[in-house]
Amino acid sequence: MAHDEPRKRSDRRSDDDGRTRTVTRPLRLALLGCGSVGSQVVRLLHEQADDLTARVGAPIELVGVAVRRPELHRDLGGYQVPAELLTTDAAALVARGDLDLVVEVIGGIEPARALILSALENGASVVTANKALLAEDGSTLFAAAEKAGRDLYFEASVAGAIPILRPLRESLAGDRVRRVMGIVNGTTNFILDKMDSSGTGFAEALEEAQELGYAEADPTADVEGYDAAAKAAILASLAFHTRVTASDVYREGIAEVSASDVASAREMGAVVKLLAICELGEGRDGPAVAARVHPAMIPRTHPLASVREAYNAVFVESEAAGQLMFYGPGAGGAPTASAVLGDVVTVARNRLADVRGAGESAYAALDVLPMGQTVTRYHVAIDVDDRTGVLAAVAQTFAEHGVSIRTVRQEGHGDDAQLVVVSHRATDEALSATVAALRTKDFVRDISSVMRVEGEES
Amino acid sequence: MAHDEPRKRSDRRSDDDGRTRTVTRPLRLALLGCGSVGSQVVRLLHEQADDLTARVGAPIELVGVAVRRPELHRDLGGYQVPAELLTTDAAALVARGDLDLVVEVIGGIEPARALILSALENGASVVTANKALLAEDGSTLFAAAEKAGRDLYFEASVAGAIPILRPLRESLAGDRVRRVMGIVNGTTNFILDKMDSSGTGFAEALEEAQELGYAEADPTADVEGYDAAAKAAILASLAFHTRVTASDVYREGIAEVSASDVASAREMGAVVKLLAICELGEGRDGPAVAARVHPAMIPRTHPLASVREAYNAVFVESEAAGQLMFYGPGAGGAPTASAVLGDVVTVARNRLADVRGAGESAYAALDVLPMGQTVTRYHVAIDVDDRTGVLAAVAQTFAEHGVSIRTVRQEGHGDDAQLVVVSHRATDEALSATVAALRTKDFVRDISSVMRVEGEES
Ligand SMILES: NC(=O)c1ccc[n+]([C@@H]2O[C@H](COP(=O)([O-])OP(=O)(O)OC[C@H]3O[C@@H](n4cnc5c(N)ncnc54)[C@H](OP(=O)(O)O)[C@@H]3O)[C@@H](O)[C@H]2O)c1
Ligand SMILES: NC(=O)c1ccc[n+]([C@@H]2O[C@H](COP(=O)([O-])OP(=O)(O)OC[C@H]3O[C@@H](n4cnc5c(N)ncnc54)[C@H](OP(=O)(O)O)[C@@H]3O)[C@@H](O)[C@H]2O)c1
Repeated sequence: MAHDEPRKRSDRRSDDDGRTRTVTRPLRLALLGCGSVGSQVVRLLHEQADDLTARVGAPIELVGVAVRRPELHRDLGGYQVPAELLTTDAAALVARGDLDLVVEVIGGIEPARALILSALENGASVVTANKALLAEDGSTLFAAAEKAGRDLYFEASVAGAIPILRPLRESLAGDRVRRVMGIVNGTTNFILDKMDSSGTGFAEALEEAQELGYAEADPTADVEGYDAAAKAAILASLAFHTRVTASDVYREGIAEVSASDVASAREMGAVVKLLAICELGEGRDGPAVAARVHPAMIPRTHPLASVREAYNAVFVESEAAGQLMFYGPGAGGAPTASAVLGDVVTVARNRLADVRGAGESAYAALDVLPMGQTVTRYHVAIDVDDRTGVLAAVAQTFAEHGVSIRTVRQEGHGDDAQLVVVSHRATDEALSATVAALRTKDFVRDISSVMRVEGEES
Repeated sequence: MAHDEPRKRSDRRSDDDGRTRTVTRPLRLALLGCGSVGSQVVRLLHEQADDLTARVGAPIELVGVAVRRPELHRDLGGYQVPAELLTTDAAALVARGDLDLVVEVIGGIEPARALILSALENGASVVTANKALLAEDGSTLFAAAEKAGRDLYFEASVAGAIPILRPLRESLAGDRVRRVMGIVNGTTNFILDKMDSSGTGFAEALEEAQELGYAEADPTADVEGYDAAAKAAILASLAFHTRVTASDVYREGIAEVSASDVASAREMGAVVKLLAICELGEGRDGPAVAARVHPAMIPRTHPLASVREAYNAVFVESEAAGQLMFYGPGAGGAPTASAVLGDVVTVARNRLADVRGAGESAYAALDVLPMGQTVTRYHVAIDVDDRTGVLAAVAQTFAEHGVSIRTVRQEGHGDDAQLVVVSHRATDEALSATVAALRTKDFVRDISSVMRVEGEES
């Protein structure tokens, strides 16, 4: 295999002053995919070539671009991709054997996985933005990188341009992360922000997001929380040094969030956000990882509450550092390409020095806590009969399930009588059983809103 | 010199399955200084020893702690520093020749500089939190690290626990940073936040900050902006790949900020913050770096406006990534120690692999723009005679200096007549000349507030 025969990467020659100076050959980079992100990678490689050369210590040469439909890629915002670089044979491109770096921005599971594995086997380091693949089968990729002695970097896979993986992997490596709570999907944040600011319902807000290009024609991956769950898996793995896959992440989307949920949140000084939450909980045999994605009410005073429109932010709580927040654009071609190129520079420096950055860190190998065992809080709005003793009966139902009540608000009367209960912390199991039991009571006409509450009393 | 004789750092032995596994000896770490930050470094090294070993790939052994008064350091929050580790002879400690890592948390210029240089010469990599030294004489330290083939890391020197230097150095290495705007001094942010929320004057707010431990008995370094200026120099160097020292940074403190400035900001929907601003400007021969620290009004809708109390935040604008913000505790023993230990892990991994991380990057070598040439905006509140033609005369004065006016608000009348002018962007020179000229006009009774405006129209 090509990478078993170390190539001569630099030769040292004497300068006039007798000191040595390194002269290096270009690093060869192949790009897989040239869509929203890939085309911006090409542009930045081109426009910032001099800076990249200075920062890496050698020029980066684009030697191939794999796409499906080469006829679409003649012109990238003024910069012409040389026709001879375009290929539809991605497999042959990554198997050339003379590549230093491969950037994968095709997305999806296959052929992305096979291409990344082949690139690594053939001696290239890989940079990818592919959250779906990493969350489904990261460990196969990490093992291949380890075996090949090459890097696998993926900053762009979570929260687009926001540097969050490198801080988790490196800056916080001397600390103990307790919780990561992120708004990591711009589409759903745009929709929820719209619902909050204008009072519209979900369907209308989704439609507006689609018109403005913030949501795709088929919005399932975003709206149902699949995209956020993949990112939660990646964040949890890094934060807790444990393998967490997308299937380990509890997931609820925002399609059921109603205008009245949002109004109810507003009344208690809160706002509804789709959160990806990764935290340490108590498992049967010690600490365990809980990872979940669901809409939740957070106080308007919480730093995440002010994340508007399609912006993303990740809030990290760690033992020594305390509370940190990282904020910025979570998607978009250019922002994502910025994250990709940051990784390209690191990985390129490593190739030049013939070293690897830190690989997978899964030494803690913690258990994953099922959602039922995860500790949460609930906000429950109950439409009740307007008669004496109802509050006591509701309180009794909570007590029977071992859930204590933090606040109760009674509203309206007659047919509009409503009790709004916010619980203290309890297992999700106990809380959902409480709600199920309430539904069976004859004094309960309807449960008009059930939502978890986050961001305080932790 | 010790580091010229490569020490055997690991030997490989065969596992049962025939694959090799690395067995490593502990890495030896010496700590210089054991005050607020140093004592927390000791605690974390102790409490998180197992995690650190797993993350680094070898144990980190604390082999010495240099202090001035060893009798004070017997007990660190329950953990006893073994008496035999304590020494008052820091110079001898760093010159032992068998150290892998030295953490410098003494502070100040000397003896910190001599100790760091000696540590590097003796083959250790260095982690420091010393912004004052880095901003005054970073290039000497970087050159010594380069020569010794060792690392010099300093994440903790700016904004405490907030990972900002690593993102600038690495995550944004494939992008072009245009501006870095930070609240990097907790003391002044606490004071200004207090003035904003309670309407008190500077002196009263400072007193409260001192009572609560947010300001030192001699608050000069914080209040006069020296601390922030040192951080601005470090940020500007990294963001623009150019050597910038503290003396290149224009500096104004907050002692002159009055309750009426704060009220005036409030009226225009803004808040006063002490900002460290590093940006690209237009120099005579192309792009140049402008670095400055001064109080400024920013709109309340700006992400930096919501940074309360002693928190820090750094806002970064770059070409591809767009607007990013990093938020968290900017100081404190434990948060700062978290940043130190993140660097320790990186540097320790590098020592194990016998490689260096990226060193100083100053290839761009841009000019530094003098403050007069820097483009800013002014907010000016002018107490004027209440007679016809005054507004025209004020406008005329701005026009004569080539400064155009964005908004004028007329307030009060008679003896209370006031004009509040916010300019468009102009050189600081032109703006300050405008204010000087206004002071000489007979219809101007007083200039009651002059402050720069940031965070919009850029
Ligand atoms: N867009 C964002 O804002 C964003 C943010 C963060 C992460 N990401 C991730 O970045 C990746 C790329 O996203 P994107 O938005 O750039 O996708 P995209 O616009 O759909 O582009 C995909 C590219 O891959 C090419 N492609 C598809 N199948 C291929 C195949 N079998 N062989 C060769 N090329 C193939 C397509 O070629 P044709 O153009 O010829 O069809 C297209 O150029 C995904 O993993 C995504 O999750 C995207
Ligand atoms: N504190 C923060 O929140 C913070 C935040 C960011 C960065 N930093 C930086 O971190 C560094 C340390 O700050 P700190 O707050 O920890 O300072 P500190 O509490 O004053 O501690 C300084 C330590 O250095 C020791 N020391 C002083 N002179 C010495 C000498 N000549 N030889 C050996 N030891 C000596 C002192 O010994 P004795 O204890 O025996 O006097 C003390 O242990 C500074 O560069 C500071 O700017 C601090």
